[in-house]
Amino acid sequence: MAPATCQARGVRIGVIGATGPAGQAVAVQFAGIGDQVVVGSRSEERAAATVGELRDRWPDRELDLVAGDNRAACDADAVVLATPWEGVPATLADLADALEGRLVVSMVNALAKWGRYMVPLVPPTGSVTAAVALALPGSRVAGAFHNLPAGPWADLEHPLDADVLVVAERRPVAREVTALVDRLPGLRGIDAGNLANAAAVEALTATLVGINIRYKAHASLRLTGITRD
Amino acid sequence: MAPATCQARGVRIGVIGATGPAGQAVAVQFAGIGDQVVVGSRSEERAAATVGELRDRWPDRELDLVAGDNRAACDADAVVLATPWEGVPATLADLADALEGRLVVSMVNALAKWGRYMVPLVPPTGSVTAAVALALPGSRVAGAFHNLPAGPWADLEHPLDADVLVVAERRPVAREVTALVDRLPGLRGIDAGNLANAAAVEALTATLVGINIRYKAHASLRLTGITRD
Repeated sequence: MAPATCQARGVRIGVIGATGPAGQAVAVQFAGIGDQVVVGSRSEERAAATVGELRDRWPDRELDLVAGDNRAACDADAVVLATPWEGVPATLADLADALEGRLVVSMVNALAKWGRYMVPLVPPTGSVTAAVALALPGSRVAGAFHNLPAGPWADLEHPLDADVLVVAERRPVAREVTALVDRLPGLRGIDAGNLANAAAVEALTATLVGINIRYKAHASLRLTGITRD
Repeated sequence: MAPATCQARGVRIGVIGATGPAGQAVAVQFAGIGDQVVVGSRSEERAAATVGELRDRWPDRELDLVAGDNRAACDADAVVLATPWEGVPATLADLADALEGRLVVSMVNALAKWGRYMVPLVPPTGSVTAAVALALPGSRVAGAFHNLPAGPWADLEHPLDADVLVVAERRPVAREVTALVDRLPGLRGIDAGNLANAAAVEALTATLVGINIRYKAHASLRLTGITRD
């Protein structure tokens, strides 16, 4: 995935919106395998607080977490977008220049409460990932990590057992991201196709949230009947 | 699931549109566990041909398959809708009276080829299952079996290893269907919520078809991290 210069200094992951549950989980998981992770936030103060909380939770791990604003998180081998969905357009408008040429992985789910359950919102582009790709034509954009339960995924001691559906318009970009995913404990990256598939992958999160409420569980996806290599 | 009178004579399953790959698979699986299955088709002749083919494929099994037209398939404890998506409105208009009060399980995926891959079509009701429920207010409507690969699922010797996401507007209807699913080899029914979730479940089929092409596989879904009972 990373060019030789990156390998030499280790992989650097940026997380935009890393103070929320999903962002914290992805940050701690990459830091847990020794990557340097820039914990980004609109507020550098909140980013620093999150870094402190994560270090306090895992005092025996030497987590290479760096607090920064969202722009700082763009300077990375892979930039994970983990903001609330409402913040995506403004965030991308602010950071488009800093994300030029970058690998950008959206894990944003657009969900809303409808009665007792969450329902997926369908943005005019069909999916959030497609919106990101359209807003960042100069970046390598993929979607991944949508379907992981944030709480359990933030637990470094108990890896999930899950496949991560990776969507991207171009297969080499999907392969970069499946390779990133494969480095994480318990996860396997699956190239789930182009961005026509992002709507299903993102919407499935609402279904899984409902299943988790109904069964008092933290469900993850596995594909059976498939050998990847 | 079935009332006492049904238990006494065994479960009877009707399949509307049973001559296609998905319909054949569901028919042979229920027949494989000893249920009587009405193999329905617009053409009773084609239904009879399908019954003949399935019996020829499994000569050592005593499959209780009955050929009939689609109306005959409605007289069953559970009626599985397996027609092509284009045929759904006309089929339901024809059979609404015969389906009154019945348990109707739609396994219909609305897919179209877009370039090299299949994409999900979004009907004006959001999903095919929602369209079926709206067209049949007097029936107990659910969606299930969307994500199973038809070819491998038609193989009685090699059960799949899969969870079946069951969607229905009412939980008791979902439970009827998860109980039906649990009777089938290798499958577990999961109540995946109301029909707001049908869009994601149906659309996911296109993603799985793409994954199968890309990985030369027959992928099925499993949920991990969930104990159902």
